[in-house]
Amino acid sequence: MDVKDHRPSGLPVTVPSTALFTDQYELTMLRAALRAGTAHRRSVFEVFTRRLPEGRRYGVVAGTGRVLDAVTNFRFEPEMLDFLDRQEVVDGPTLDWLADFRFTGTVRGYPEGEVYFPGSPILQVEGTFAECVVLETVVLSILNHDSAVAAAASRMAVAAVGRPLMEMGARRTHELSAVAAARAAYVGGFSATSDLAAGFRYGIPTVGTSAHAFTLLHDTERDAFTAQVDALGRGTTLLVDTYDVAEAVRAAVEIAGPELGAVRIDSGDLLVVAHQVRRQLDELGAHDTRIVVTSDLDEYAIASLAAAPVDSYGVGTQLVTGSGHPTCSMVYKLVARADGDGAGAPLRPVAKKSLGGKLSVGGVKWAARPVDERGIAEAEVIGTGEVPEEFSERLLGVELMRDGEPVGQEPLSAARDRHVRARGALPLSATQLSRGESVLPTRFLTPTS
Amino acid sequence: MDVKDHRPSGLPVTVPSTALFTDQYELTMLRAALRAGTAHRRSVFEVFTRRLPEGRRYGVVAGTGRVLDAVTNFRFEPEMLDFLDRQEVVDGPTLDWLADFRFTGTVRGYPEGEVYFPGSPILQVEGTFAECVVLETVVLSILNHDSAVAAAASRMAVAAVGRPLMEMGARRTHELSAVAAARAAYVGGFSATSDLAAGFRYGIPTVGTSAHAFTLLHDTERDAFTAQVDALGRGTTLLVDTYDVAEAVRAAVEIAGPELGAVRIDSGDLLVVAHQVRRQLDELGAHDTRIVVTSDLDEYAIASLAAAPVDSYGVGTQLVTGSGHPTCSMVYKLVARADGDGAGAPLRPVAKKSLGGKLSVGGVKWAARPVDERGIAEAEVIGTGEVPEEFSERLLGVELMRDGEPVGQEPLSAARDRHVRARGALPLSATQLSRGESVLPTRFLTPTS
Repeated sequence: MDVKDHRPSGLPVTVPSTALFTDQYELTMLRAALRAGTAHRRSVFEVFTRRLPEGRRYGVVAGTGRVLDAVTNFRFEPEMLDFLDRQEVVDGPTLDWLADFRFTGTVRGYPEGEVYFPGSPILQVEGTFAECVVLETVVLSILNHDSAVAAAASRMAVAAVGRPLMEMGARRTHELSAVAAARAAYVGGFSATSDLAAGFRYGIPTVGTSAHAFTLLHDTERDAFTAQVDALGRGTTLLVDTYDVAEAVRAAVEIAGPELGAVRIDSGDLLVVAHQVRRQLDELGAHDTRIVVTSDLDEYAIASLAAAPVDSYGVGTQLVTGSGHPTCSMVYKLVARADGDGAGAPLRPVAKKSLGGKLSVGGVKWAARPVDERGIAEAEVIGTGEVPEEFSERLLGVELMRDGEPVGQEPLSAARDRHVRARGALPLSATQLSRGESVLPTRFLTPTS
Repeated sequence: MDVKDHRPSGLPVTVPSTALFTDQYELTMLRAALRAGTAHRRSVFEVFTRRLPEGRRYGVVAGTGRVLDAVTNFRFEPEMLDFLDRQEVVDGPTLDWLADFRFTGTVRGYPEGEVYFPGSPILQVEGTFAECVVLETVVLSILNHDSAVAAAASRMAVAAVGRPLMEMGARRTHELSAVAAARAAYVGGFSATSDLAAGFRYGIPTVGTSAHAFTLLHDTERDAFTAQVDALGRGTTLLVDTYDVAEAVRAAVEIAGPELGAVRIDSGDLLVVAHQVRRQLDELGAHDTRIVVTSDLDEYAIASLAAAPVDSYGVGTQLVTGSGHPTCSMVYKLVARADGDGAGAPLRPVAKKSLGGKLSVGGVKWAARPVDERGIAEAEVIGTGEVPEEFSERLLGVELMRDGEPVGQEPLSAARDRHVRARGALPLSATQLSRGESVLPTRFLTPTS
């Protein structure tokens, strides 16, 4: 299976430029900073969360590959500049600057598929204030969406205990969210998607055979099954709950023979029905015919079917909406900036300090995840300044862009494999589905000097 | 204010074709139906929900204009056909059929901005089975997403009691979801968006001035305020909670004068802080300087600020995630189809009937909303067959596409105005924020003949 994250061809989900996926204030800040002469101060912005979604024990980084694409495609086309000019969002000098815009800085961060905890420096963007500030909105859009879906996918993959999971939520979310959701679900452990655009764009395996409408189109259920087997072969999946399940299973095996690939159940008490259907299939000699279930599943419903004779799960709504947490609370904060314009001016840590408000920790962070003698992670250690010797082998950040060019791109399957490894190295309670606290404590180290 | 829903220019959010925003099973059903000779049976699919999100009293139809665009742009490009061929999703005859695809049928439905209830026939797509079935996924993606955001927006607009609401959630959702969310929020009653792509694509007014990063970039808060006023004028909005709010307000008025447009508060106890800031602004003579608040607001937080001296609200996360309900549960079901291929073959109602499963009502529906003597809606009356005389003046469906061409397109503001009227005609309890049942009962009428 060849899954590529950087397929050159784009139709139908390539967006020519990502530059307007931007909150207006990024450009008004740019305008004011250009005029004040502060726009070119070297700056570092960090993406992090202050907390995990309530009850969740770990987060999953997803969307990093899409971020690199978005930064690369962040160009202001003439039509876009006309719009900004006409709306008086920016002034002449700012328009000139935007016309030439191309990100030339550095991006570092957690590689895709890695787990994260409160405070983890998930992404670090370094460059001039001007070139970093304009990227805020699109970077957060991607990471907040994709990581939310990947976190739900990861919990579902744990609950499925090795049985394949198929992403089928396109109809429950925005049509392009759906494509990104299929990608994030793959990173989180899903095997396939129903979304053809996700197959086209990212090479994720696609699945799907038929819906109730197909049965209803035909004069009898038997006509529908015959038509489907005739077109798609005996290995197809027949949907058996349009009328009476037992009758449908009987007809299905009669028409396709014991070589019937699978039957799909989309309603009713899945635990009971799956047992009945398995028994009936076995009695009919269709021992290899699989059972697929697809009715409003979430990680808890999947777990409750662990003892049922189910072969795979199709998951829709709860996956693409992050199973109760459709977004992460990642923020993009200026943590350090130079006093002057020169490339060599030293960086000083900065942080918002309003009383009673949202606190941030200033300074460019490193992060490490030390392990115990069994290789199990003990803490998320985050610091500024020099990295203590004991953590130097356990650093989490990697280089993602250098001089504005993506580096170290990888196939999507690498992120998927990394996630399995990272999750596997967490304490056992990480994968409990019940509500809990972050499974690793976050320890902030401040420089001693 | 000129808001256009059908702006010809597309960058950067036009997607060349919507045809792959499709679940694979739509195309495998097509393939099997083409082979069985049933693909050209005249069919009617209906979009409806079986229930409202828990606790919600009404739903809001949004995305209809986007559906018409998506259907118009549903074309299979050569690259897409190659992909489907290579993946063996479809066979040769199906590829030929897809290559020529262009929807030629009829679409009727609730106009955008209208309210809906369980069972309301929100959209009806009529044509051959083949041309209708392939549209299922993209139609549902759009309506489920956009209507979820519009419903949240509508509740927030009620809670804001006339104060302007600004959509600022782009960073919390997929970058293209964000554009659609800004559009849906506008339909639901918001006044503006921070999302530049939404301004570019739909002409929605855009807003935004600065973030904490801008203050932190400068050596002092005063430097930052001076730079912003210098670039954006005295009418700008200064963010006053980076360090100490009272000091910031004093500096803001000193620098901009009493002509200062607004101050923004993004953290802390907004009720308390808004009162303090108002008092301070008044003492400083800045009586016309407005107060904007923006910290993790939802409809309840907005309502709790009704008595506070707040002039407008910026809403992000909770808006774009549907305030707890990020999707609707709209489905797209075959409700009637002809027995034969001829255009004149009579339609027969069809419905899934699996025991203990999800029930649907067969037949092509009409819907009406009769009112009492005060003009207040009494019920959502849904029937099949002839429309009884008493309901003929209160029908809700309108024609949206004829022979595959959109008809009756309208500016987005028309949908926004319609929503205010439709919500205003509901019983008073519709706009209670507390959890409740559907504010109108759904009454199904079956034909007496």
